[in-house]
Amino acid sequence: MAKKLTTRSENYSQWYQDLVIKADMAENSAVRGSMVIKPYGYAIWEKMQAELDRMFKETGHVNAYFPLFIPKSFFNKEADHVEGFAKECAVVTHYRLKNDKETGDIVVDPDAKLEEELIVRPTSETIIWNTYRNWIQSHRDLPILINQWANVVRWEMRTRLFLRTAEFLWQEGHTAHATKEEAVEEAIKMINVYADFAENFMAMPVVKGVKTASERFAGALDTYTIEALMQDGKALQSGTSHFLGQNFAKAFDVKFTNKEGVEEYVWATSWGVSTRLIGGLIMAHSDDNGLVLPPKLAPIQVVIVPIYNKMEQLAAISEKVEGVISGLKAAGISVKFDDSDQKKPGWKFAEYELKGVPVRLAIGPRDLENGTIEVARRDTLEKSVEPIDEIVAYIQNLLEEIQQNIFRKALDFRAQNTTKADTWEEFREIIANKGGFISAHWDGTSETEEKIKTETKATIRCIPIDNEQEVGKCIYSGKPSKQRVLFAIAY
Amino acid sequence: MAKKLTTRSENYSQWYQDLVIKADMAENSAVRGSMVIKPYGYAIWEKMQAELDRMFKETGHVNAYFPLFIPKSFFNKEADHVEGFAKECAVVTHYRLKNDKETGDIVVDPDAKLEEELIVRPTSETIIWNTYRNWIQSHRDLPILINQWANVVRWEMRTRLFLRTAEFLWQEGHTAHATKEEAVEEAIKMINVYADFAENFMAMPVVKGVKTASERFAGALDTYTIEALMQDGKALQSGTSHFLGQNFAKAFDVKFTNKEGVEEYVWATSWGVSTRLIGGLIMAHSDDNGLVLPPKLAPIQVVIVPIYNKMEQLAAISEKVEGVISGLKAAGISVKFDDSDQKKPGWKFAEYELKGVPVRLAIGPRDLENGTIEVARRDTLEKSVEPIDEIVAYIQNLLEEIQQNIFRKALDFRAQNTTKADTWEEFREIIANKGGFISAHWDGTSETEEKIKTETKATIRCIPIDNEQEVGKCIYSGKPSKQRVLFAIAY
Repeated sequence: MAKKLTTRSENYSQWYQDLVIKADMAENSAVRGSMVIKPYGYAIWEKMQAELDRMFKETGHVNAYFPLFIPKSFFNKEADHVEGFAKECAVVTHYRLKNDKETGDIVVDPDAKLEEELIVRPTSETIIWNTYRNWIQSHRDLPILINQWANVVRWEMRTRLFLRTAEFLWQEGHTAHATKEEAVEEAIKMINVYADFAENFMAMPVVKGVKTASERFAGALDTYTIEALMQDGKALQSGTSHFLGQNFAKAFDVKFTNKEGVEEYVWATSWGVSTRLIGGLIMAHSDDNGLVLPPKLAPIQVVIVPIYNKMEQLAAISEKVEGVISGLKAAGISVKFDDSDQKKPGWKFAEYELKGVPVRLAIGPRDLENGTIEVARRDTLEKSVEPIDEIVAYIQNLLEEIQQNIFRKALDFRAQNTTKADTWEEFREIIANKGGFISAHWDGTSETEEKIKTETKATIRCIPIDNEQEVGKCIYSGKPSKQRVLFAIAY
Repeated sequence: MAKKLTTRSENYSQWYQDLVIKADMAENSAVRGSMVIKPYGYAIWEKMQAELDRMFKETGHVNAYFPLFIPKSFFNKEADHVEGFAKECAVVTHYRLKNDKETGDIVVDPDAKLEEELIVRPTSETIIWNTYRNWIQSHRDLPILINQWANVVRWEMRTRLFLRTAEFLWQEGHTAHATKEEAVEEAIKMINVYADFAENFMAMPVVKGVKTASERFAGALDTYTIEALMQDGKALQSGTSHFLGQNFAKAFDVKFTNKEGVEEYVWATSWGVSTRLIGGLIMAHSDDNGLVLPPKLAPIQVVIVPIYNKMEQLAAISEKVEGVISGLKAAGISVKFDDSDQKKPGWKFAEYELKGVPVRLAIGPRDLENGTIEVARRDTLEKSVEPIDEIVAYIQNLLEEIQQNIFRKALDFRAQNTTKADTWEEFREIIANKGGFISAHWDGTSETEEKIKTETKATIRCIPIDNEQEVGKCIYSGKPSKQRVLFAIAY
């Protein structure tokens, strides 16, 4: 009994929603806009966290933890930041409940009103820079290279599991530097870490680039981004790294004495990725049968399903499989032997396909006689029969091959769905019929950018890093342009 | 330049506060009652998390994530839980801010008032059991063995870094079972996991026991606890595991069909430990020179300080030390070589003593000649000179010895500070002059418990598990008693 999914061609958005629910990744909660991340979805997040955390530490960062609540007045201090962030927020106004004397119900105690409201952090620049002020006096206190794993809340009106939720989990790096050059270098270093993670662990190709002024993070001088392409031709902003200049240092009066004994404001970066990545992972690779997970992030890499009629057969299979399991575990491969008697093999096959387990092994009495085992790979759905004695080495190679194949497939998809447009008609035609990334000339003005967005919903995803310089004309205004930028309709 | 601490005998509470601040563990934030956990403190929390998470998984649990916000009405559903938990909470009443038209300042938008207020979770039983209702139909859906790593908020009026803060980090396990026996077994299993962690990783001896009715978790039928003794003779409740019966299943209507086809309410447990453990770790072992950390949880296990006058000497030392560092790392030991030129060795010695690094190695030109290295252990402050060629094996053993010694020392302290009292005068005398645990007979009534608390501030910390049965008379009421219970003044 496979759980049937809506197909991608029928309704991509419904397919995604079905898949997240049926693969037991997450569900909507009783609290509007907040999701419950179920164990299978959370296991992927844990794998992502482990790799990212390792990468952050290898690049010299340490973890810390700052308060969930931010005094309202902090948002008044950085003007651009206010505009972008302080609006759709959860606001704590009271600190006590009490029993209503008449009804006995619980009500908010009007006597417990806070003098100053507290905002549930939508991001932590303000509280962190307010803290850094006391940590930084001299250039010897710099750099500060801190990351925080945390929950944040942004009161989104239209939510979608993983992709946009009111509360989400993320990490936010907040670094402080003595020079502009060092801060810019840090911001670029971290976008490179994100790209490395996206491509080599998520198997999701990304374009690294710089945001235009209107798409920048509120308070940043430059926002670096990694942009991925989903199977419906929409772009997903998957991680951002911000060069914040001295804006937050000025807002929170964070100065240091440099080597020459002169006081200066500190330079800042911040960077983050979130549980949104899980949405990207799902949409980048999965198919109408369910999830397709890259082996490096799959909670279960190999599942073994015994095929049997009699219990003696199961016993013989279990005995044979024991060596395979210990061999796989010794090779650092996670494996599940599903010998449950309550479901038929066909049900199990469909279930693990739905869950995206990269490799499925099946073994029956005939395999025992022949010394073989059936191998099915999730990415291509191909099956083969292999000698059981060499299966561990075979699977090690296969997992690596699957990891690479998933990436190649996504890379091919992106190549096929990245189109150059040289006229406004072409641009509109591509947006209307094909989607994907559009590489086109733009005159560099926010006005043109805004008009294109209004007319087509397409936004400039980024100006790719190391972009080729090429003389051309803006597809919208016809004004001169020095380079193409990347447009798409985005999540 | 050692940073001078208040001594324990001068003022224990001030010593603790000084130590947390000066060892860079945590500090108070701009938000009343919320702390900033600094990188050194957070590194200890990460080590604790890694070990606990491993232990939870080894006992069959998986992680998930539930919403931060809980609808107010959920707290009305479990009567006892309301009394204990729904009062001192942060309440979200609005979801938007706006700019005041006259002042330009940010104000709460009165139009964005929530229909139902949201409570920032003080603990998650209600939201989780509301979710479990949809996950559980049949006995085949049980058990559910879920843990969550999260932040929670309880509006405490008197806070103290790590020990009691408005926001803190913790893990909360929430399990669902088909039978009472299984749920009780789970609750006991987890208190045993906590005791194992406390004693074998934190090196902090604990008494496992059951809480009296008045000290139980709000909504529990039984609360199991681990109680540790701090150096000032006060007890610290360090972890609790609750058998919740069917209370939350009834409150949230969570039923399952058992093997006989009959509908029953589900049985529940919950269990948690928090960043409070870091406070316990500090208070259990540290001394007037600073932190004393058990090697298994120390962020840095070994520090190497070079002693030199000339840069050539440093170069020769660095070369020699390279082999030691790689040897230690290969043995899984974390090591820092502090060759910074900005501080003198004496300053470094005091600094790493303050930070509780278990082993300090010092090496100078004479050591190079002699093939030796100086070893100083933090727990006893003893020094010795050892052959450098055998230093890795020596340190491996030494770290194990330090881990055990710290535990033994705390165990001896507890033995010396656990006193039997057989009369009310004895009891009061011990509370007034000695402190520590008092083992005494109690008549089993809440009235007597309350009176003892009012007169002496001592509470019943627990009825130890496998408590010796012994006929006696209640020290307060003189009524008959079957066993001694453990009293103390507690944090």
